[in-house]
Amino acid sequence: MTDTRFDVLTIGNAIVDVIARVGDDFIAREKLVKGSMNLIDEARAEQLYAVMGPAQEVSGGSAGNTAAGVASFGGKAAYFGKIKKDQLGDIYRHDMRSQGVHFETAAATDGPATARSFILVTPDSERTMNTYLGACVNLTAADIDDATVKASRVTYMEGYLYDRPEAKDAFRRASDIARAANRLTSVTLSDSFCVERHRDDFLHLIRSRIDIVFANETEIKSLYQTQNFNGAMEAIRKDCAVAVLTRSEKGSVIVRGTETVEVPARAIAKVVDVTGAGDLYAAGFLFGFTREMPLRRCAELGGLAAAEVISHVGARPEVSLREHAGEAGLL
Amino acid sequence: MTDTRFDVLTIGNAIVDVIARVGDDFIAREKLVKGSMNLIDEARAEQLYAVMGPAQEVSGGSAGNTAAGVASFGGKAAYFGKIKKDQLGDIYRHDMRSQGVHFETAAATDGPATARSFILVTPDSERTMNTYLGACVNLTAADIDDATVKASRVTYMEGYLYDRPEAKDAFRRASDIARAANRLTSVTLSDSFCVERHRDDFLHLIRSRIDIVFANETEIKSLYQTQNFNGAMEAIRKDCAVAVLTRSEKGSVIVRGTETVEVPARAIAKVVDVTGAGDLYAAGFLFGFTREMPLRRCAELGGLAAAEVISHVGARPEVSLREHAGEAGLL
Repeated sequence: MTDTRFDVLTIGNAIVDVIARVGDDFIAREKLVKGSMNLIDEARAEQLYAVMGPAQEVSGGSAGNTAAGVASFGGKAAYFGKIKKDQLGDIYRHDMRSQGVHFETAAATDGPATARSFILVTPDSERTMNTYLGACVNLTAADIDDATVKASRVTYMEGYLYDRPEAKDAFRRASDIARAANRLTSVTLSDSFCVERHRDDFLHLIRSRIDIVFANETEIKSLYQTQNFNGAMEAIRKDCAVAVLTRSEKGSVIVRGTETVEVPARAIAKVVDVTGAGDLYAAGFLFGFTREMPLRRCAELGGLAAAEVISHVGARPEVSLREHAGEAGLL
Repeated sequence: MTDTRFDVLTIGNAIVDVIARVGDDFIAREKLVKGSMNLIDEARAEQLYAVMGPAQEVSGGSAGNTAAGVASFGGKAAYFGKIKKDQLGDIYRHDMRSQGVHFETAAATDGPATARSFILVTPDSERTMNTYLGACVNLTAADIDDATVKASRVTYMEGYLYDRPEAKDAFRRASDIARAANRLTSVTLSDSFCVERHRDDFLHLIRSRIDIVFANETEIKSLYQTQNFNGAMEAIRKDCAVAVLTRSEKGSVIVRGTETVEVPARAIAKVVDVTGAGDLYAAGFLFGFTREMPLRRCAELGGLAAAEVISHVGARPEVSLREHAGEAGLL
């Protein structure tokens, strides 16, 4: 095994979030399903932006948020994702590196612009995402840097990558390298519709080459096509070494072999924008896990990070999670 | 007089704010003066960005914020400012138009990129601004659209424009047109160091062609080179028809001829980021003034808008100021 340079390597779609508050009427008028993640093309991106209100721009992308979270805890994080060499791409790279994340994936010099997701936050703090993948279409197996994968304790990938065959190849290549190097692999199911699109692939993947699965309640139920959470939980227990199941205000449950650890959610003064909750939970969990903390503590760190990110607009932490966890007595 | 299409036209530097939280040690290390606005060149912009933490991007620019505020109150606002045709410029234009602001200044197709201001917010919620003017250097008298000036009840300009001779020409041209059309002219002194740089010019301007001056306490004292607020207030009373003097937590004072109206500041639960307080105060005041409301009500609307904008990160309103003022019983 090579030297361990990174606790967590994450791989995903590199996306700048364009966040605007909208009323429920806007969601209805644009025929959107609240809480969903929709892939949109360039024409729809332009049409939607033209009718959206003023926005703010913050770097995002599910796995990117997780890498930023790990770094904010003081963990050593790396990231693979594809930007274009343009202003939004420069912002994305800055936000990663200045958070302390190792991010060396080459920027595309031609083709579509850096990806953006139009995130519409309704008065109930729910988010509806509309993602134009742009330059992400250029992420391929060639962008998987072997040395970084080998040097990372865990390689974590977002299920969204399965929406493109080239990214799926990149995903498989990274997991091959990690396993050959005796490293851990992890995946988040990302979104229940993403699970619907790739259910058989995800099941095969989890059974054959993944050590830690992250899923929320809707996603894990969709994976096993059941309305019964306990049924889904027992199914994933047999299929994967560690499963981390998040249940919003009901907290989270971790299953590992015969172990079952239930952790309640943290009390939150005010939920402002739920974007990034799952990504930051994964960051806290993986930070604790790679530092060999007990499962309960890993889950508590995940819950702490999720609570921070939903208390403000944007899916990246606004405070040092290391200090925040220290004040909460978790580190 | 032509038809009145706009309540307020504002003219200023079109700037995207790049906002990051920093510790006081960062301000010291970069040899910055807390609370100041510094003009920086491209090399310094790159150097500063490289050492800054993760940021969020929100459209800003003093007069741009004021136009957005007027529109948020339900007023008819227009804006002149220079962006480049690039991603940040597209964002700037979107944020203006989607707020309802008429913004037709042609984007530059070459030359420097859209302006950005690196705004460093310290734990005390104070902001230190570092502005790279970029494409703003292309704003000239040729960008003053006569018809829009003639169709606006008030033309409001930011003093920052005096930092460039071409923009100063644009400023003078706009005020000439407004006066010839029997419209009102207004200016904000912008910043005490800006006043130092242009004191004589500002005094001449105010005495010869401005109807409404906005200044905070430091700026008005600097204009008249006195440490005595009342002395400065009596001086501006003689020099300008209406002077609107803001004093942070001490509220504001408006002087018009022999009238003096003092209005206390609104109570604020938590100050998060003071950026834009003066700009939004001006928006509320001018909205009320162009709707012929009493001075006290104009000041109350200004205070309401300022209180909203300092309760969150970013210098543009995050709620409808019209609804907010309605709930507060001011509209």
